[in-house]
Amino acid sequence: MNDANLNSINGADERKSKTPRVVIVGGGFGGLAAAKALRKAPAQVILIDRTNHHVFQPLLYQVATSVLAPSQMSSPIRGILRKHKNTMVIMGEVSGVDKEQRCVFVNDADRQHVPVHYDYLILATGVRHSYFGHNEFEKFAPGLKSLADAVAIRNKILSAFELAEAEDNVDLRRDLLTFVLVGAGPTGVEMAAALAVFVRTTLRSDFRRIDPTSARIVLIDASRKVLGTFAPSLSDAAEQHLQKLGVEIHLGQAVEKIDSEGVTFGGQRIASKTVIWTAGVAPSPAGKWLGAETDRAGRVRVQSDLSVPGHSEIFVIGDTASLDQDGKPLAGVAQVAMQQGHYAGKFIRRRLAGKKSPKPFRYFDKGTMAVVGKGYPLSKAANCTYMAFWRGWRGLSFTSLFCLSSV
Amino acid sequence: MNDANLNSINGADERKSKTPRVVIVGGGFGGLAAAKALRKAPAQVILIDRTNHHVFQPLLYQVATSVLAPSQMSSPIRGILRKHKNTMVIMGEVSGVDKEQRCVFVNDADRQHVPVHYDYLILATGVRHSYFGHNEFEKFAPGLKSLADAVAIRNKILSAFELAEAEDNVDLRRDLLTFVLVGAGPTGVEMAAALAVFVRTTLRSDFRRIDPTSARIVLIDASRKVLGTFAPSLSDAAEQHLQKLGVEIHLGQAVEKIDSEGVTFGGQRIASKTVIWTAGVAPSPAGKWLGAETDRAGRVRVQSDLSVPGHSEIFVIGDTASLDQDGKPLAGVAQVAMQQGHYAGKFIRRRLAGKKSPKPFRYFDKGTMAVVGKGYPLSKAANCTYMAFWRGWRGLSFTSLFCLSSV
Repeated sequence: MNDANLNSINGADERKSKTPRVVIVGGGFGGLAAAKALRKAPAQVILIDRTNHHVFQPLLYQVATSVLAPSQMSSPIRGILRKHKNTMVIMGEVSGVDKEQRCVFVNDADRQHVPVHYDYLILATGVRHSYFGHNEFEKFAPGLKSLADAVAIRNKILSAFELAEAEDNVDLRRDLLTFVLVGAGPTGVEMAAALAVFVRTTLRSDFRRIDPTSARIVLIDASRKVLGTFAPSLSDAAEQHLQKLGVEIHLGQAVEKIDSEGVTFGGQRIASKTVIWTAGVAPSPAGKWLGAETDRAGRVRVQSDLSVPGHSEIFVIGDTASLDQDGKPLAGVAQVAMQQGHYAGKFIRRRLAGKKSPKPFRYFDKGTMAVVGKGYPLSKAANCTYMAFWRGWRGLSFTSLFCLSSV
Repeated sequence: MNDANLNSINGADERKSKTPRVVIVGGGFGGLAAAKALRKAPAQVILIDRTNHHVFQPLLYQVATSVLAPSQMSSPIRGILRKHKNTMVIMGEVSGVDKEQRCVFVNDADRQHVPVHYDYLILATGVRHSYFGHNEFEKFAPGLKSLADAVAIRNKILSAFELAEAEDNVDLRRDLLTFVLVGAGPTGVEMAAALAVFVRTTLRSDFRRIDPTSARIVLIDASRKVLGTFAPSLSDAAEQHLQKLGVEIHLGQAVEKIDSEGVTFGGQRIASKTVIWTAGVAPSPAGKWLGAETDRAGRVRVQSDLSVPGHSEIFVIGDTASLDQDGKPLAGVAQVAMQQGHYAGKFIRRRLAGKKSPKPFRYFDKGTMAVVGKGYPLSKAANCTYMAFWRGWRGLSFTSLFCLSSV
C-alpha cells in the first residue's frame, strides 16, 4: 500500500486514526442505501462516483421526453449525505481493485490509478447499455442510462421537430418525424408512451407547417412480448394501451442494422432520423476488477450474504450482482439495489460492533410498475418509493423524496 | 426577390395570399412583446430566433449560481406563442438585411442566407458581452448572456469546488476557491451576492476537506461605484451589503490581463481558477445589417416612433436601439424592450388597419431593481414583472408567469 499516493487523494491526517474504512463505489440506489445504513457506524465511509449527482434512473425517460427537467431527476450526492459526518464523497472513476492489498484505483481530473485503501468494499457500479456485440449501433442509436444521455436524447427529439418544420422535402420531413425505439422493456415501453403523449399534448399546437401528432412512433423488440419480464396480463394490457396511443409495435424480430438513415429488422426497413436504444444492459467491469465468477450476463455471482466468495470484506450489490432467490435470478431494479445496499451496510455495521452476522439476504418484493402514458400505472402492488414520487411529482416538490427512507 | 429560395424556408402556399408579413428577429423580451401585440393583426408574423426558447435574462445569474434550474429560467417560444394562429417561429440565425428588396437572410441547420421577405421588420436582436477590445479574455472569463453560458458557468463553479476537495496543494486549492467577477453592474453585483449566499448555505456542509464558506469572492470594476447607473443611495447600500456578505470589492481599476491563472488589475494580481465576465455589453450587428447610424456603443439610432430614418417599415427595439428620453439614453433593461416591442407591434397593427400613427414612444419607468442576496431587493418602485416572478418562485410554479402581460 503506497501511503504517499493515497495521501494525495485522502489526506495523510485522515489515515492516522485507525478507524476502519468502508469504500462504496457508485452513488446509485444501492450505493446510497449502503451509505445511509452506515451513517452511525464507527467507520470512515468513502463514496466514489463518476459524477457528483445521484440520478433517479427509472424516470430518466421523462427527461428524454421533456416531461421533467434534469434537475428534477437528480440530486447532488453531497447534499443527500450532508448529515453523514463520517462520509466523504469523491468524484472520480474507479479503474480497478487490488483484492490482496485491499485498495481500489481511482482516476480523477488530473490523476490516474490513485490507490484508495479499504477495510470493507461495496461495489454498486450498476450497468451501461449493451448493444449485443453491435457497438457500431451506439453512434446512431444512443442509450439511456445517465442524465447526460437523457438530455442528449431530449435535444435530439426536439431538434427533429425543429428541422422537420423547416424542411420542404416531404420524404425527409417524414423521416424526421419517425422515432424508433429499440427494446420493449420498461424503458422502451414507458418512453414510447411518454413520447406519444408528448407529441399529442405539449407539442400539438406549437408548429405551423408540420403536425406533431402525425409523428410515427415505432417500438421494436426481438422477443414476442412487450414488458417480457412482467406478468402476461400486464404485458398484454401495456401492448393494448400503446396501440391505443398510436404506437406501432414490431415484436419477434431482432434489429439487424442501424445507420444514420434508419433501422433494418426482420428484412424490413424503417427510415428514421431518430433511433433510440432502450434494449439490453451490460454490467460494469466489476467482475473483471475482482477476477470473480460471473453469470452469463457478466454479473458477479455473490453469496447469500452478498459477499464475493473467498472475500467476506467485499460486497457486490444491485445490477452488478447475480443472486438467485427461490430459483430465479433477482431483477435489476432499484428496489433490489436499495434493499441489498441496506443489507450490506447493516452487515458491516454489525461486524464492526462485534455482533454476529445477519441472516442471508432476502428480497422483499414490493411490486413492479411501468407507467404507460399519463396516469396509467400498471402496478402489481403499491410500490412505496414510486408512489411517494408520484405524489410528490404532482405537487412539484418531490426532490426531497429522493431519500431512500422507504427501504 | 428570389421566390424559389424563399419557398424553401416559408413554403410557396403561404405567400400566395397577399397577407402582409411582419418579420421579428429575436425572441427576447422585446420580440415577444411585439409578437403579442400583433396577435390579432391581419398579418402573417414570422419570429426568427437562434434558439427555440425565450430566456428570462435578468435572472440568468441564478442559473449560474445553482439557485434555479435552466428550465425554470426559460420557456419554449413556440409554447409562449402557441395561441397565435398568425405566427410562425423559425429557429435560425439572421445574417443580414436587404432594405431595398425587403428581406432578411437566414441561416438554419443546413441552408445559408435564405432570403425571407418582409413588409414590416422588427429587429430585437439584443446584446452580447463586450470585452472592450480584449477578445482574448473571453477564453478565460466567460460571459453571461445565454442559457448555455449560464450552465457552463454553473458547471465551472461546481467543478472548482470538486477539484478543490481533491486537491492537496494548498496554493492550488486556494486558487480554486477564489472566484473573480469582472464588472459591478447589476449582473456582477447580483451574482457576487448569490455566490456568497450559495457557498454559505447550500454548499456549507457538503464537503469534508475544504470549507466552502472560506471561498474568496472578488468583484472588480473600473468605475468608482457598484451599480453605477443606479441612484447613489442604492449603490451605497448595495456595496455595504456585499461587504457584509464577505465579498471583496475593488473599484476604480480596470482589468489589464486575464489568463488561466488569474486576473491583473491596477498593478495588482489575484490568482484564481474561475474568472467570470459580468462587464460591458455589445449590441448585435443590426446596425451593420441596416447600414444605419449608430451611437458610440454601436446601437441603432431610431426615431421617436422607433423606426429607422428613411425606412418607416423597419423598427429597432430593446438593447439594439438607441433613443434618448428627456435628454438621457434609455437603459438596456427588459422593461424598455417590452414597452418598445408592444409599441412597435401596436404601431404596425394600427397602420394595417388604416388608422393614424400613435404618439411617439415614451418609456414609463416602473422602477429598477437589483437583488443582493436572498430577500434583499433594492427597489425604487415595485416592478410588476419581477414581483410576479418572485411570488411565483416561492410557490415553485412561476414558469407560466413568463408571459409579458404586465406591459
